[in-house]
Amino acid sequence: MTEQKLGVCYYPEHWPVARWAEDARRMREIGLSVVRVGEFAWSRLEPSPGAYDFDWLRRAIDTLHESGLEVVLGTPTATPPKWLVDSMPDMLAVDAHGRPRKFGSRRHYCFSHEGYARECDRIVTRLAQEFGAHPAVAAWQTDNEFGCHDTVESYSEAALAGFRDWCRRKYETIEALNEAWGNVFWSMELSSFEEIELPNLTVTEANPSHLLDFQRFSSDQVVAFNKRQADIIRSYSPGRAILHNFMGAFTAFDHFALSRDLDAAAWDSYPLGFLERSPNSEAFKSRYMRVGDPDFQAFHHDLYRGCGRGRWWVMEQQPGPVNWAPWNPAPAKGAVRLWAHEAFAAGAETVCYFRWRQAPFAQEQMHEALLLPNSEPNEAFHEAQQVARELAALSAHVERRRADVVVVFDYESDWAWKIQPQGQDFSYNELIMRFYRALRRAGVSIDIGPPTAETVADRKLILLPGLFTAGESLVEGLSNSAAVILAGPRAGSKTEHFNIPAALPPGALQSLIDLRVRRVESLRPGAIIPMSDGHPGHFERWREFLVLGDEAAIAMASRDGECALAQCGHHYYLAGWPDETLADAVVSRLLVEAGVETSRLPQDIRIRDNGGLRYVFNYGPETADISSLVSDAGLLLGETKLPPCGVAAFRKDSLTEK
Amino acid sequence: MTEQKLGVCYYPEHWPVARWAEDARRMREIGLSVVRVGEFAWSRLEPSPGAYDFDWLRRAIDTLHESGLEVVLGTPTATPPKWLVDSMPDMLAVDAHGRPRKFGSRRHYCFSHEGYARECDRIVTRLAQEFGAHPAVAAWQTDNEFGCHDTVESYSEAALAGFRDWCRRKYETIEALNEAWGNVFWSMELSSFEEIELPNLTVTEANPSHLLDFQRFSSDQVVAFNKRQADIIRSYSPGRAILHNFMGAFTAFDHFALSRDLDAAAWDSYPLGFLERSPNSEAFKSRYMRVGDPDFQAFHHDLYRGCGRGRWWVMEQQPGPVNWAPWNPAPAKGAVRLWAHEAFAAGAETVCYFRWRQAPFAQEQMHEALLLPNSEPNEAFHEAQQVARELAALSAHVERRRADVVVVFDYESDWAWKIQPQGQDFSYNELIMRFYRALRRAGVSIDIGPPTAETVADRKLILLPGLFTAGESLVEGLSNSAAVILAGPRAGSKTEHFNIPAALPPGALQSLIDLRVRRVESLRPGAIIPMSDGHPGHFERWREFLVLGDEAAIAMASRDGECALAQCGHHYYLAGWPDETLADAVVSRLLVEAGVETSRLPQDIRIRDNGGLRYVFNYGPETADISSLVSDAGLLLGETKLPPCGVAAFRKDSLTEK
Amino acid sequence: MTEQKLGVCYYPEHWPVARWAEDARRMREIGLSVVRVGEFAWSRLEPSPGAYDFDWLRRAIDTLHESGLEVVLGTPTATPPKWLVDSMPDMLAVDAHGRPRKFGSRRHYCFSHEGYARECDRIVTRLAQEFGAHPAVAAWQTDNEFGCHDTVESYSEAALAGFRDWCRRKYETIEALNEAWGNVFWSMELSSFEEIELPNLTVTEANPSHLLDFQRFSSDQVVAFNKRQADIIRSYSPGRAILHNFMGAFTAFDHFALSRDLDAAAWDSYPLGFLERSPNSEAFKSRYMRVGDPDFQAFHHDLYRGCGRGRWWVMEQQPGPVNWAPWNPAPAKGAVRLWAHEAFAAGAETVCYFRWRQAPFAQEQMHEALLLPNSEPNEAFHEAQQVARELAALSAHVERRRADVVVVFDYESDWAWKIQPQGQDFSYNELIMRFYRALRRAGVSIDIGPPTAETVADRKLILLPGLFTAGESLVEGLSNSAAVILAGPRAGSKTEHFNIPAALPPGALQSLIDLRVRRVESLRPGAIIPMSDGHPGHFERWREFLVLGDEAAIAMASRDGECALAQCGHHYYLAGWPDETLADAVVSRLLVEAGVETSRLPQDIRIRDNGGLRYVFNYGPETADISSLVSDAGLLLGETKLPPCGVAAFRKDSLTEK
Repeated sequence: MTEQKLGVCYYPEHWPVARWAEDARRMREIGLSVVRVGEFAWSRLEPSPGAYDFDWLRRAIDTLHESGLEVVLGTPTATPPKWLVDSMPDMLAVDAHGRPRKFGSRRHYCFSHEGYARECDRIVTRLAQEFGAHPAVAAWQTDNEFGCHDTVESYSEAALAGFRDWCRRKYETIEALNEAWGNVFWSMELSSFEEIELPNLTVTEANPSHLLDFQRFSSDQVVAFNKRQADIIRSYSPGRAILHNFMGAFTAFDHFALSRDLDAAAWDSYPLGFLERSPNSEAFKSRYMRVGDPDFQAFHHDLYRGCGRGRWWVMEQQPGPVNWAPWNPAPAKGAVRLWAHEAFAAGAETVCYFRWRQAPFAQEQMHEALLLPNSEPNEAFHEAQQVARELAALSAHVERRRADVVVVFDYESDWAWKIQPQGQDFSYNELIMRFYRALRRAGVSIDIGPPTAETVADRKLILLPGLFTAGESLVEGLSNSAAVILAGPRAGSKTEHFNIPAALPPGALQSLIDLRVRRVESLRPGAIIPMSDGHPGHFERWREFLVLGDEAAIAMASRDGECALAQCGHHYYLAGWPDETLADAVVSRLLVEAGVETSRLPQDIRIRDNGGLRYVFNYGPETADISSLVSDAGLLLGETKLPPCGVAAFRKDSLTEK
Repeated sequence: MTEQKLGVCYYPEHWPVARWAEDARRMREIGLSVVRVGEFAWSRLEPSPGAYDFDWLRRAIDTLHESGLEVVLGTPTATPPKWLVDSMPDMLAVDAHGRPRKFGSRRHYCFSHEGYARECDRIVTRLAQEFGAHPAVAAWQTDNEFGCHDTVESYSEAALAGFRDWCRRKYETIEALNEAWGNVFWSMELSSFEEIELPNLTVTEANPSHLLDFQRFSSDQVVAFNKRQADIIRSYSPGRAILHNFMGAFTAFDHFALSRDLDAAAWDSYPLGFLERSPNSEAFKSRYMRVGDPDFQAFHHDLYRGCGRGRWWVMEQQPGPVNWAPWNPAPAKGAVRLWAHEAFAAGAETVCYFRWRQAPFAQEQMHEALLLPNSEPNEAFHEAQQVARELAALSAHVERRRADVVVVFDYESDWAWKIQPQGQDFSYNELIMRFYRALRRAGVSIDIGPPTAETVADRKLILLPGLFTAGESLVEGLSNSAAVILAGPRAGSKTEHFNIPAALPPGALQSLIDLRVRRVESLRPGAIIPMSDGHPGHFERWREFLVLGDEAAIAMASRDGECALAQCGHHYYLAGWPDETLADAVVSRLLVEAGVETSRLPQDIRIRDNGGLRYVFNYGPETADISSLVSDAGLLLGETKLPPCGVAAFRKDSLTEK
Repeated sequence: MTEQKLGVCYYPEHWPVARWAEDARRMREIGLSVVRVGEFAWSRLEPSPGAYDFDWLRRAIDTLHESGLEVVLGTPTATPPKWLVDSMPDMLAVDAHGRPRKFGSRRHYCFSHEGYARECDRIVTRLAQEFGAHPAVAAWQTDNEFGCHDTVESYSEAALAGFRDWCRRKYETIEALNEAWGNVFWSMELSSFEEIELPNLTVTEANPSHLLDFQRFSSDQVVAFNKRQADIIRSYSPGRAILHNFMGAFTAFDHFALSRDLDAAAWDSYPLGFLERSPNSEAFKSRYMRVGDPDFQAFHHDLYRGCGRGRWWVMEQQPGPVNWAPWNPAPAKGAVRLWAHEAFAAGAETVCYFRWRQAPFAQEQMHEALLLPNSEPNEAFHEAQQVARELAALSAHVERRRADVVVVFDYESDWAWKIQPQGQDFSYNELIMRFYRALRRAGVSIDIGPPTAETVADRKLILLPGLFTAGESLVEGLSNSAAVILAGPRAGSKTEHFNIPAALPPGALQSLIDLRVRRVESLRPGAIIPMSDGHPGHFERWREFLVLGDEAAIAMASRDGECALAQCGHHYYLAGWPDETLADAVVSRLLVEAGVETSRLPQDIRIRDNGGLRYVFNYGPETADISSLVSDAGLLLGETKLPPCGVAAFRKDSLTEK
């Protein structure tokens, strides 16, 4: 039974030694248990080549330890020092325009550079040797936010050599590659692996198969880079959890694949910053500017719980205005508390605030923290303290349960549709969110997983919108399932090599749904395909024209007489991009058919179950009445007149008892 | 008398040999006569340096021939294979930022690279030797879509050397160049031709004279590149028509000049893709999203008929959604048929669909075709078949007649106003379209030609809006004409060297119209210059202030008292950019004065005469009544209640007979 | 007592010698006194290395002199000739992407290139030797529009070496630099000055301290470049005023610093071009499209009067449509006259029109002039003549008086907030204009100065919105002042090294205003913070949360209960970005408190005092009644029914006498 904890990110190297003990004392005082340190500190750990200085870090960790705090130790490989870069300038990544990405901020390295990878082995080994057995060290973080600032892809010489090698291992013969990519088209045929180029700076778009393989290669390089560190740490610091802090709305490498080398996943949750950067409407952004998108964090909590095979953290939690969004408003009072509770409700083991004290210098000086730069408490300081108290009162701990509903999320699908959107606004992430929101508005628990048999096993409802290609084991898993299944739009529309399936889309899914897609079209903004009379909603952005086989029937038609939702027993195929109304209608219908219990929720209310403990959150600007969900008597936290940013909690079995 | 034919583009190298005969049989079955093959196939024709393989292509051509199909053979020079590029990497074009444009798609070559040009001579020679006398080969296509993906201009070393040489040949002395360009300005004077740079990466805009000469040079390089191929083909394959497939809305080289080395012009017509990419309003794009701009194809048909001196084809016709526009909707039912008939009505010899079967791989896998990737017929398959039947029923053939009305179209003018728009939205192409649409709405036949005496000879109405400079022979041709002439805005406003004429604009046109332009202004969106009372419409984007000479009179004034339309006998000068209303008013007035018969047409109806055969097209979403144009009894095709995408045809003399 | 004069820019090298005398005669005839020549003429002054040709220029100057005209002689260093560039190609600046900025327009040099600087020493020395004592030469202009086309910053090898050296001189030890920049953050610590890089092409944003120092260095390089020329000229041409022609809305180097090496400042005033390029709303741009922003020129007049320590010119005045704005409309009739009078009212010594005759060639051929290319008078010719007559009638001369109100303008603050806007639309220039407009609408005289004790001495009202950091001497000056002072938003929020002050913002200003800023937030468009009941207006874009000390009180609160305007005696701090309404309210309140007399002006009316002479201008499209300001009897110029573009003038003491 994992106790749920609060923590904070701390940079002792930014502050005088004299302040450390007081900092530790205050952390403990407000109920923090976990402190992340060390990532970014390479220039202090090794000020010049081979001259290590671990004393200051040991002292810092000891100080934290003495106050009863646990430590997450980060490897400093996201920020190689200048002397290292100067010793091998070709370790820098190269952007798609062919320009080296220079020293002067962070993440200035190419994942394919073996020389740099060996330097990382070295510093990680030394760090793990020094601190792997330290009693305060409870966990490790590899590097920091892999891929941030578009650093997954590099067009360097090292990447070129690596990609050629990767292709050789994958295809074995150049003929196989030519065949897989369809290189006969436009005379792109190659006669050796040495003729392969990176897919940048082509005259017009490169071959999608080429682009997809390059993205797969780039993702694999990140996975391999992480694994070297994880293996080293594991050997010197056994029994400690190894984590990485992933990001939101970031898909350039396969997080499921990388997570297989971790003990738990973590992500950095900045609700307001992400909202400002999102593709949502201006009205939506204005409504939620101080509390964030009610479903965005939720989605990532579920995603990273899937990545971590149940184990996950929030490694960085927004404490106030940040410095990196187009606009950086202050959170509403209570929002910082709300976010933490939603994470714990989703099963987070630990939520760490970023960061303890606002740095008065350098790039992130406008990023707030629990303390002001002058050490006065900021607003989040008090909200964190309140959360700590409430966690204690609830004896909060992780209660894992498998959700009835699963959404299949596939990184390759996102790559594929970025490579070939076909309509300018076709976004896999937005499509997934369209369905995720509908499910969340229906008040059900949702798991998110990769396209595997394991993901779909033992579910009542399975959604796989936009799934680029359906692999053999997934199809087998689906075939063995009694669940209601929804595929489409665009599901199964490509082979693994980014070709159109021989029997037309949905390709391998045809074994589940007897139809073929004869035509697709993308729709300009404002162009819609209404459903037939009596059915609310419409398609937008994308629609498909189906030819139904004998086994399939029309479950819903569009007004122009085409099949909009096809049905084969408990398997469905949706032939377009639903607007919110249609998404709600389809999802509701399938939930009923699947026998999943739903709740009718007011507009801005969301609910979450951590095992038997149900949380209710108010993301709206007005007080909401949740007495249809629970009575005041049953509440462990909050009240039925739930104010803006309000959080309520109760045990579900208390309802039944009543 | 040229019979009008349907054809298709076919890539035998993309499919198993076993499928070829069946493909040929089905093509013939639905009434296709012409098949384009071979462009892009270099890597199959010469898999390694000097190792030719023509057998497969001969077999393909033989197979088509056996089914009674004619072949258009394309030269494969748009897609040099990787081994060739690796043998001379400096053959790649260089973009304006100085980056090589790499292998991996198509058109990866610099027109100025002599080494590559020699390789093209070699492969074209071999191809022409092999197939020049083949009985199936009825025509040739040089390369493919010259200039596509902005490939006319290159900033390579080869281009620099070529440009210096071009300048030397044009100006002979550097002093003459300095004088022509006005290089005394900003100390840009050069002391030798070796000091000339390409006009990219300058600190602020380069000298317009420099830019214009660079565009002329770049255009000349394309013309020369094509001519080498045409000369070779002509020597080995006499009697076969040599064509090139031009594009829509593309002006970076002089298509009239290049066409002089061809036997007929051709273009690739994608109505929906071009509409989505066009500068039209969102409302316009939404209205016509499934049928295309009613005047865009029409304009290009007339333009390329002009390029081909009467002989022209559609080499690629859109068959369904394409893959390259921002959004790619499906055509309305009947649109594919409508487009073909409009092309034949405009005198096309042949219309080829692109392509026979949708490729399931590589860059264009989302581009539809007559067949689905699995060989099932797609919608266009049936519409093509219908068109073939209707052509037969009409005994359709090309009937050439010189139009009373001509619009002068000048590639240099487009370059000039792109170089010096003076107002952000001054677009030569849009200006020309403003007048072209007004003429087409008036139901008249229109020719389009270059600014030559031949173009303007024997006309009733001549329009030359925006003509950058008026050359001596054109002015002489105009002087000798009895036609009504409309010049302006901006006509004759520069000398050949991109200077302001000594006696002010309209320069050489002053011999026809006695006025000078003392001032021009560009107008921000929303700023308009209304006409005086009783005259509908206004100027927008651009207006000029005229000083009239003794011979000139005000034919229309603006509300602020300036001359808006000046008249000297049957010569007119329009002092601004007319909105649609004003364009209609001016054009109507001039058509009446010129004695050209006009028709009043419903909003979305357009008409076309192929000699004595008049076609009527409905581009709108509602059925239109065309009984004011013809009775049902007179119709060879269609009905007077013309449905959306409807086509009607009748012989004009049948009306008179009545 | 400096007589106010009209002048013109003239390029004798563009025209036949035979035309010069006639040109001079006509200039004099319409009342021009001053002619600027020579800048840009390097290729004529030194056609090949070391081969000087000064004869033509001497002849031109003699010709002007003979007609009684004074000459401003420009150094030609903005346009080095091709042979010079070819002799040292690394003199070209390099853009932020790493590309050399090539020959072919102007300003193609890097300020840090010592080789080029020596070439400039040479040509300037020779020019000064030749013409320094010529009786016609009344003044000099160094170079031309330093920084135009983003040329202040260069990322060349020369700039890198220069920047390292600059840092070494500033910080002495690398430890000091690491400390100042906070390089411990993200392991950016450096071990020697040779490790410093330029802040371009970093993976994500560079350190703001690094960026600010690079901008300071770049600015210093411009200042040093100018000083070399000024020193040379001063030694060979003593007693002549040395000027430079600055630009509008341009802040990339410190104009106050550079001006210290000049005798007078000058700027190039293009009201319509600047309006089109401005961030104002479309409605605003449409209203003023033919007369310009009523406050933009005014602001720059005041700014450059501050730069010139009272002495300033308009070196280039727009005469008609220009060639470089997105749209280039014609000025309203009378606008050219209005602009000149507003400049003289602001104390300009000389206003020169750009240019005498429109060039028919090269980049600026669409830029109008007093004469058309064919030497006919254009509209501005007549308006200039009228202005000259009116100046004579008024016996116009410069009357200097110190304004009661001063706005502190700080170039570093603009750099700082461009580096770290924190909200996408935070613009220092727009913030300053918000306050400047409110002051000008109140009809008061305004000085603008740098953040020094001298600037703030002897004032009644001092505004320092957005002032990045407050230096010691400024704070002392403010402390010693009895003026009403308004600071905020964002004032004093950083240290000189771009860190947050130890005691929080407003840092050093806390000695004046007893408060600290605990939080800031940026607000998306549409998000506003209304003032409490009874107070009109709101904050937008930016707001701050204050903690007031014992000495401070709330002078105005926002509706959400925060302090919006804090007061400590006569010192105020505004906690946000005011909309126009709030800006007017705050400014009015402070003007009253400061005892500054204000005027209630109709919407588009502006007033200006040149000492005792008050001018009234009508920038609106309708006739305005200004009889509340003056009676017709008192007017020296104009009438109380002031038409569009109308100018009135009267002596203020004539009112008192009445």
